[in-house]
Amino acid sequence: MKKRLFTPGPTPVPEQVMLRMAQPMIHHRNPEFMEILTRVHEDLKYLFQTKQPVLVLTCSGTGGVEATMVSMFSPGDKVIAVNGGKFGERWVDMARKYTGNCVELKVEWGTSIQPDDIIAALKQHPDAKGVYFTHSETSTGTATDVRAMAKAIREHSDALICVDGITAVGAHELRFDEWGIDVCVTGSQKGLMMPPGLALVALSERAIKAIETAKLPSYYLSLKKALKSYKDNDTPFTPAVSLIIGLDESLQMIKAEGIENVWKRHQRLSAACRTGCEALGMRLFSNSPSFAVTPVWLPEGVEWKAFNKVLKLENGITVAAGQDAYAGKIFRISHLGFYDELDMLAVIGALEMTLKKINHPFEVGSGVSAVMKAFLEESVAV
Amino acid sequence: MKKRLFTPGPTPVPEQVMLRMAQPMIHHRNPEFMEILTRVHEDLKYLFQTKQPVLVLTCSGTGGVEATMVSMFSPGDKVIAVNGGKFGERWVDMARKYTGNCVELKVEWGTSIQPDDIIAALKQHPDAKGVYFTHSETSTGTATDVRAMAKAIREHSDALICVDGITAVGAHELRFDEWGIDVCVTGSQKGLMMPPGLALVALSERAIKAIETAKLPSYYLSLKKALKSYKDNDTPFTPAVSLIIGLDESLQMIKAEGIENVWKRHQRLSAACRTGCEALGMRLFSNSPSFAVTPVWLPEGVEWKAFNKVLKLENGITVAAGQDAYAGKIFRISHLGFYDELDMLAVIGALEMTLKKINHPFEVGSGVSAVMKAFLEESVAV
Repeated sequence: MKKRLFTPGPTPVPEQVMLRMAQPMIHHRNPEFMEILTRVHEDLKYLFQTKQPVLVLTCSGTGGVEATMVSMFSPGDKVIAVNGGKFGERWVDMARKYTGNCVELKVEWGTSIQPDDIIAALKQHPDAKGVYFTHSETSTGTATDVRAMAKAIREHSDALICVDGITAVGAHELRFDEWGIDVCVTGSQKGLMMPPGLALVALSERAIKAIETAKLPSYYLSLKKALKSYKDNDTPFTPAVSLIIGLDESLQMIKAEGIENVWKRHQRLSAACRTGCEALGMRLFSNSPSFAVTPVWLPEGVEWKAFNKVLKLENGITVAAGQDAYAGKIFRISHLGFYDELDMLAVIGALEMTLKKINHPFEVGSGVSAVMKAFLEESVAV
Repeated sequence: MKKRLFTPGPTPVPEQVMLRMAQPMIHHRNPEFMEILTRVHEDLKYLFQTKQPVLVLTCSGTGGVEATMVSMFSPGDKVIAVNGGKFGERWVDMARKYTGNCVELKVEWGTSIQPDDIIAALKQHPDAKGVYFTHSETSTGTATDVRAMAKAIREHSDALICVDGITAVGAHELRFDEWGIDVCVTGSQKGLMMPPGLALVALSERAIKAIETAKLPSYYLSLKKALKSYKDNDTPFTPAVSLIIGLDESLQMIKAEGIENVWKRHQRLSAACRTGCEALGMRLFSNSPSFAVTPVWLPEGVEWKAFNKVLKLENGITVAAGQDAYAGKIFRISHLGFYDELDMLAVIGALEMTLKKINHPFEVGSGVSAVMKAFLEESVAV
C-alpha cells in the first residue's frame, strides 16, 4: 500500500533531498563541505528574512530553544513564557529549570495570545529579560500574530523577543529583521522538508550582545561557541554532515519556489484542508488556525482508534493524534512542507473512505468537492 | 577522481546504510519506527557488551558526554578528568563548567594514562564522584587500557567510571558489564559507519542511580528524561529518525561480522598501517597505538601543505591533519569503521605516490609490500 505522511514533523522528505543525503560521506573540515555550509548559512538568511546569523545546531528544535535560554540568560533572570499547548508548556518548564524565574502566561488550548495580554504581563513584570512564545503551536494547530506580538513587546519592554518558530518557519510569513525579532528557532523536520536532527537559530544583534554577557553554563548548546565558529562557516562540534547536505538541497527548492510563494501555498492548502473537513461535518479545533497543521474534532460517535486504524491500515495515511486532554477527541492533519493541492485532495479523500468504512454518515464527495472549490473557485482565495 | 576518506569521524558510510536512510520518512511514534528503535536498543547492548540500557541521543559525541555530566552530578561534585589530547581537554573544560570542581590529570600527548596514575589521584582525592577518561584519543591516536583502568578505579574508589569511547567503540575490545564500567559514550560517525548526528550512551545500574539524585539542571540532554522514554522504546524529543534507521542497518552489519571479529579487524588493519608507514621511513607518534587511527610524523623535510595537496588532489585521499602543537608535524590515517585490508593497501599506496611526486626519497613498493607481509605472513598476527 502506498503510504502518505500527514504529521507535523517529521514531514515528507522530497526524493532529491533523500538522494542528495545518500552521497558518499565527506569530512566536515573539507573545503567541499565548508562551501556547502557557507551556502546553507546564506540561504537560511533568506528563509528567515534576515541579514543576521542563523546557526545550525545538531539537535532537535527543543535543543535549539534550550540553546537560546542557556546562552542568553543568567541565573535568576526573569523570563515570560507563553503556554498555549504542549510546546509552550515545555518552554515554561525549561525556563524554570534554567533561570529559576519564569512567569507563565497560560492561554487556553486552541486560542492565541493577544498583544494586550503580553502588554499587561510586561507592565506587571517590567524586569522581564525575555519573552518566549510559539508562532504555530503544533499541539493545538494555533497561530500567533508574531508581528503584532513583537511590536507590542518592543513598545513596552527591552525584553528579548524569542519566537519558537519550529512548526511555523516556511509555513507562516516571517520577517525576522523587519519585525524586530531577537530569536527564532526552527527544526529541520518541519517546513524545511528534511529528516529531524537539526535546529536552526536566528539571532538579532541584541541577542548576540546578550550571549556575550550571559552567565548560565553551557557547552554543547553554547551559542557563544556556535557564533565563534559561524564566522568561519564552521561548527564547534562535528555536525550532522549528511543532514546539512540535505538542507542545502531543500533550501534550493524553497529558493526556487520563492519564500512568499511557499508561505502562500501553506495558507492555501490549510484553508482547503479546513474547508474539506468542515464539509464532512467535522468541527475545527482552533480559533486562530495554523497554516502548518489543522486539528479537527472527531465527529460525534466516531471512536479514534477504530477511525485511525482504517485511515492508516486501509488508506495508508498517517495523521497525528490529539494530545493530553484532547487525546481521542481531536486529530491533526499536517500540510507543512512538501505538499501540494493534490495532497490535500488525497487526505480529504482518505477521510471520506474512512468515514464510509466505519459507517459514519456523510455525503460522499462533499469533502473532496469542497477542496476543489476552494482551489478553483477561490472561495478561500489568498 | 575516486575519493577515499581516511578520517577518524566522519568515516565512510556503506552503500546499504546510505540507501536505507534514503527511504520515505516515517513518524517517530509510528509502530514501524518503534520496532526499529527497539531492535537498535537491543543491538546496541551487543555492541557495548552489556545488559544495561544504551540510550540514543540526537547530538554529537560531545553532546553525549555532556549529557552524562549534567545528568549524573550535582554542583560542587569533584570529577577527575584525564587530559591526554584535544578530547580529554574538552572533558576537563566541561566538568569545570558544570560541577565547578574538576581535577585535571594531564598526560603527555601520545602516551596513555596508567592504572598507577589514577590510583595515586584517587588516594589524593578520595571524594571524587567520577573519573572521565578516553579509550582512544583521536588527536593522538593513543589507546588506554580501559579494563585495567576500570579495575584500578573500582578497587580504590566508588567514583563512577566514565569512558569516552567515541573513537573506540567498534574498534577496541569493550566489555561494559564485565569490566565494570559505569558510562560509555560513542558517536554514530565513528566505528558505527554512520553519518554524524547521534550519540550512544551506555549506563550501569550505579550510573542510573546517580541520575536519580543528581541536581545539575538539564533538559534536552537529560538522561533522566531519556531513560524514562527508553522503557517504552521511545525518545523524549523528536529523534534523528533517518539516522536511527541507518544505525539499524549498520548494527546488522556489525552483528553479521561478529563484534569480536570487528575488533580483530581493527587491530589487524591498524598494525598493517603502522608497518606500512614505518617501512616508508615514517615514525609513529603514539607509544600506545589506537586501533582506530594512526598518527605518524611527517618525514624530515616534508612540508604538510604540499604533501596533503598531492595526497588529496592527485590521489583522492583525505587524511586528518595534526592538531595544536602538532599541526604541520604529524598527520593521522584512520581505519575506523568500514575498512578492509585492501583499503590499507590503497592508503599506503597513495602515500608512496605522494612521496614520489614531491621527490622525497624512499624505496618504491616498500610500504605496500610491508602491508602485504603484515597480512599474509602474519608478522603482525592477531
